[in-house]
Amino acid sequence: MTGAPLSSWCDGRIKLAILDFISRVTTKGRADFVPPADRIAVFDHDGTLWCEQPQQVQFFFGHDRLATLAQYDPTLRQRQPFKAYLEHDLAGIHEMGKRGLFQVAAAEHAGMTEEAFDQMARAWLARALHPTLAVSFTKLVYQPQLELLAFLRANGFKTFIVSSGGGDLIRAFSEEVYGVAREQVIGSSVRTHFEVQGGRCDPLKLAEINSFDDREEKVVNIGLHIGRRPILAFGNSDGDLAMLRYTKAGKGPRLALLLHHDDEEREFSYDRDFTLSPLVEALDKSSEYGLTLVSMKHDWRTIFEEAVAVRAACVEA
Amino acid sequence: MTGAPLSSWCDGRIKLAILDFISRVTTKGRADFVPPADRIAVFDHDGTLWCEQPQQVQFFFGHDRLATLAQYDPTLRQRQPFKAYLEHDLAGIHEMGKRGLFQVAAAEHAGMTEEAFDQMARAWLARALHPTLAVSFTKLVYQPQLELLAFLRANGFKTFIVSSGGGDLIRAFSEEVYGVAREQVIGSSVRTHFEVQGGRCDPLKLAEINSFDDREEKVVNIGLHIGRRPILAFGNSDGDLAMLRYTKAGKGPRLALLLHHDDEEREFSYDRDFTLSPLVEALDKSSEYGLTLVSMKHDWRTIFEEAVAVRAACVEA
Repeated sequence: MTGAPLSSWCDGRIKLAILDFISRVTTKGRADFVPPADRIAVFDHDGTLWCEQPQQVQFFFGHDRLATLAQYDPTLRQRQPFKAYLEHDLAGIHEMGKRGLFQVAAAEHAGMTEEAFDQMARAWLARALHPTLAVSFTKLVYQPQLELLAFLRANGFKTFIVSSGGGDLIRAFSEEVYGVAREQVIGSSVRTHFEVQGGRCDPLKLAEINSFDDREEKVVNIGLHIGRRPILAFGNSDGDLAMLRYTKAGKGPRLALLLHHDDEEREFSYDRDFTLSPLVEALDKSSEYGLTLVSMKHDWRTIFEEAVAVRAACVEA
Repeated sequence: MTGAPLSSWCDGRIKLAILDFISRVTTKGRADFVPPADRIAVFDHDGTLWCEQPQQVQFFFGHDRLATLAQYDPTLRQRQPFKAYLEHDLAGIHEMGKRGLFQVAAAEHAGMTEEAFDQMARAWLARALHPTLAVSFTKLVYQPQLELLAFLRANGFKTFIVSSGGGDLIRAFSEEVYGVAREQVIGSSVRTHFEVQGGRCDPLKLAEINSFDDREEKVVNIGLHIGRRPILAFGNSDGDLAMLRYTKAGKGPRLALLLHHDDEEREFSYDRDFTLSPLVEALDKSSEYGLTLVSMKHDWRTIFEEAVAVRAACVEA
């Protein structure tokens, strides 16, 4: 971080609202003061902390892993939802929605230990490139959000990621990239099985969904994992609406932020048309629900770190 | 904490082993150095951090709450496991085991918001007294463990509670009593339901078990909530054995501690005979499994804080 906080945010109403909120809840003696233990901030992941276009990163991860698995089990090429993923059948993928994506992910976890999965995910992240921007996915995190996460922590907040994506994939880079500890990542998950057998003493992942952490389930999992209502939430789709409204409905100062992808030049422009994770109700009723709409185009000075922006421009040219 | 660390622990082999372990994992340049992010310590709750005799505290909580509910629904007096709890039928309670206890707890949560449950639990803890020692249950936490928790945190550890007891009951006092944040408490849980309806925007607890956090499930939940293998674990029954062995089986330095309740004078003496949560296999095979056996009688200078010890003596006299 440079000297002034949130330097990648444009000066204006939104940046002021964020800075004012943080100042109010952290200044002792003010009516809105919130003790550090209650300074919980939750962030959605795909499209809120990093780029989710042209597909959520989980899709690319799933595809590559599936291609490996299909070498051992060719029947995957005939069975849905695997077939659609292996054949890049976007219509089929969209039709099966996030849940199809997650079924693919579950199958890909099956039989692995958590530690082996983590190594595999790290190796994939180190070599995989975004299909059009030709950079690592972890370079496609949003610079303004990195600054906001760090600034919140510097002000005594605990920052959590609450994602419909697989939690263990996010955990493979959350500490290095976001400064968010593994235990502060809540994502979709598969069941695991633990039994000491022979010399083995590791939980094994099963091809069975434990939690699909989307929409209302995000609130359920916040209760289970965090055990208190956040005072700040940030999302970008209707999948985050329950979490945003839950946050906003608490007593005292609350900030619920909704990122609008309206910057076709520097990132992508989409909302209600993105089938996998549309933004409709949250956008239409943002005022009624008390959500603070953040425009990528008008409120963010920078989107990616400098190097990536240049690189992206080169690819486009 | 007083000047010297772990002053309520007797000088000797066990205290040295703990101090040596903490020194090894926190000294930069040593082969056993562990970066702070990986310094995860997990503690069982009942019988490890506070007294679980003559019954686990959850039992008393459950009984009192059930008595209130039975005023509104007298059929509870005819139905198991509720009947046994309302009638103090210890044989019946033991026969239904921890799961019966947890079913009672689940029914007691049903229809409450998380925030209302928290207020109810706090109010109960503030007024309830141990049946023979006549002090608040939160006064029956073990002084040596408070020192160990604080000393671990002072050395960059994150401390977690992993309990078969209801997580939300523990969360109602974990911060004040143990310095363990709500989000670092993993316990048994009921499902919750969230749906914005009318003006209500709160998750409601259901009478349905989400996770019974005992034995192998403790390891499963450590994976789900923490996402990494602890380097230190502390338990006191076979319900903790999976967690202790999982901790111990990781690479590098590991410490798995097992508390033996062998102090009839100052606390209670029990192990394989405590039906609700017996200590058999972990005790018999502690050497084979590499567990460090802690004797309450020989390794703890103090058990409860001074005031309670005096009070307990008065009641006994």
